[in-house]
Amino acid sequence: MISQEELQLAARNHGMPLEALRWDVTPVGLHYLLTHYDIPAVDPASWRLEIGGRVERSLSLSLAELRERPAVTRPVTMECAGNGRARLEPHVVSQPWLLEAVGNAEWTGVPVAALLEEAGVAEDAVEILFTGLDRGVEGGEEQAYQRSLTLAEAADGPLLAYAINGEPLPPQHGFPLRLLVPGWYGMTSVKWLARIDAIAEPFAGYQQATGYRIRSHAEDPGTPVTRIMPRALMVPPGIPDFMTRERFVEAGPCELRGRAWSGWGAIEAVEVSVDGAATWAAASLGPEPSPGAWRAWTFAWDAAPGEHELCCRARDAAGNAQPVEAGWNVGGYANTSVQRVPVTVR
Amino acid sequence: MISQEELQLAARNHGMPLEALRWDVTPVGLHYLLTHYDIPAVDPASWRLEIGGRVERSLSLSLAELRERPAVTRPVTMECAGNGRARLEPHVVSQPWLLEAVGNAEWTGVPVAALLEEAGVAEDAVEILFTGLDRGVEGGEEQAYQRSLTLAEAADGPLLAYAINGEPLPPQHGFPLRLLVPGWYGMTSVKWLARIDAIAEPFAGYQQATGYRIRSHAEDPGTPVTRIMPRALMVPPGIPDFMTRERFVEAGPCELRGRAWSGWGAIEAVEVSVDGAATWAAASLGPEPSPGAWRAWTFAWDAAPGEHELCCRARDAAGNAQPVEAGWNVGGYANTSVQRVPVTVR
Repeated sequence: MISQEELQLAARNHGMPLEALRWDVTPVGLHYLLTHYDIPAVDPASWRLEIGGRVERSLSLSLAELRERPAVTRPVTMECAGNGRARLEPHVVSQPWLLEAVGNAEWTGVPVAALLEEAGVAEDAVEILFTGLDRGVEGGEEQAYQRSLTLAEAADGPLLAYAINGEPLPPQHGFPLRLLVPGWYGMTSVKWLARIDAIAEPFAGYQQATGYRIRSHAEDPGTPVTRIMPRALMVPPGIPDFMTRERFVEAGPCELRGRAWSGWGAIEAVEVSVDGAATWAAASLGPEPSPGAWRAWTFAWDAAPGEHELCCRARDAAGNAQPVEAGWNVGGYANTSVQRVPVTVR
Repeated sequence: MISQEELQLAARNHGMPLEALRWDVTPVGLHYLLTHYDIPAVDPASWRLEIGGRVERSLSLSLAELRERPAVTRPVTMECAGNGRARLEPHVVSQPWLLEAVGNAEWTGVPVAALLEEAGVAEDAVEILFTGLDRGVEGGEEQAYQRSLTLAEAADGPLLAYAINGEPLPPQHGFPLRLLVPGWYGMTSVKWLARIDAIAEPFAGYQQATGYRIRSHAEDPGTPVTRIMPRALMVPPGIPDFMTRERFVEAGPCELRGRAWSGWGAIEAVEVSVDGAATWAAASLGPEPSPGAWRAWTFAWDAAPGEHELCCRARDAAGNAQPVEAGWNVGGYANTSVQRVPVTVR
């Protein structure tokens, strides 16, 4: 059961209905969205990105100046670290995601590495801190949303994105500029960027030291949530009941389709079970995607009349295999327990 | 408390975070969305709109043929008939909306009246039936989503919309074509249109005869849900706590802002209470909008330190006044009880 407080979060934030796994590039408005505080209103004419801290040359850049720089466009699968949280027992109180907190968009922006090079990171800097314009209270502490990356992490892949699927960012995705860190859970990809600072000590703010840590119990300091653990999801086949979301499938050949992804390496295998994770068979993988983007898979199922529970799981090239039942943690992060889709074939 | 079944709906459907009331035209992706079944995949090349039933000339139109016809663009406020449902006591089980199921988009399309004239409605026709491509099970009955309008209702205002905010409809809003009925709750605006039929008997399908009726008890046949009852909502001021959504406001002058709308007539007045609906004062209304679109309002509040509960309510030109506490009904429809925003001023 979900409290009224959690419902307030579920009513604001939104997942990607799983039939949208059929689109390789998730249409805007179907991509998942988690907003910690409020969506800020930003005037793009007066907005500037400030780059400072332990750098040789502070920079202050307008959106037009950022758009003049060499840009990269790449598809990136983003997933909320809390995806799967509402499926955990005992119950974890926070944004109650089932399985929908994911999306794969084409992001366009300037590599963080290029701007750091332009600014010249000082020798004593150890991390890059990203600060958003969104403000709120969390854990009793008023804050702007902030996350850091090590110098190595910041230099290898992250973009400062100003476009999604070829269009300017909509307000809810971080207009006018957001960080985009391929392979990492979404909390890292700070939206509505205001500042980037090179810092001489590891960042110990709320979202890094308190939030987003895998803890086995309340006093456990835990380990940071970082890259996305492998997961496969399928488009639920057949047609749904409005209220229960029970699925009804016609008997006969039924192609199951879905996507799989991992922030640790390429997807090497997807397996499907049609008997509630008792037995597994290999799915066919689609073409190798761009690194950090999800991979399509299909599975030919001969649907026999009766009740079935469909499941899928993924394995990546780094040796991570999606568990049938993932472990519990205090924050309810990275719950990659396999999807279970009960269907009635008739 | 909300069940896992209701959470499945809340995770798929999504509201408009109320800070988005600041935009006169709701950006795509922030507009509310309720999908009864699954979002269908439609190939626009093979898709056609069939117009038939009791007409003189059946029509079969491609998207290109529809786009060639004279078009209308207008801002329309759409609200789900279930908005406010999760605030009702006793609890009503269905999509658990708090207050976010609303949006105001600019829709472009062909007037329904023009196409009905082209087809020539037969003399014995009494209603126009709209059938979507979305299929599912509801109340134990497999169905395509269908709703009807009387001839008079169909001829006066409804559009067949193929664009939102100047862009082709995204899949979730009914691509390639949807019905758009200004002033009516959203269930009327059938998405993913497949057919339009003139019919000689009033439509008695599930979504008209069973769903979307105001019933006082389970055996009450009830009355149909039709036009949108007046409502005012405000942008919650200040900054939120992530989990509780409690608001914190700086002491001093604070401009409260919001929107108000009604499907029955122009908004004539908005009132604000800063003491939990004990006393009310008039808000200033923005310019008269296009009929069917929401109206902006503002209220100058001098925020004194302490706890306050902010409320707002609307009245329309048809004589409907938003109640402080709306009545209960079986389906949880049209709950326009006033918004209550508790804030701490410091």
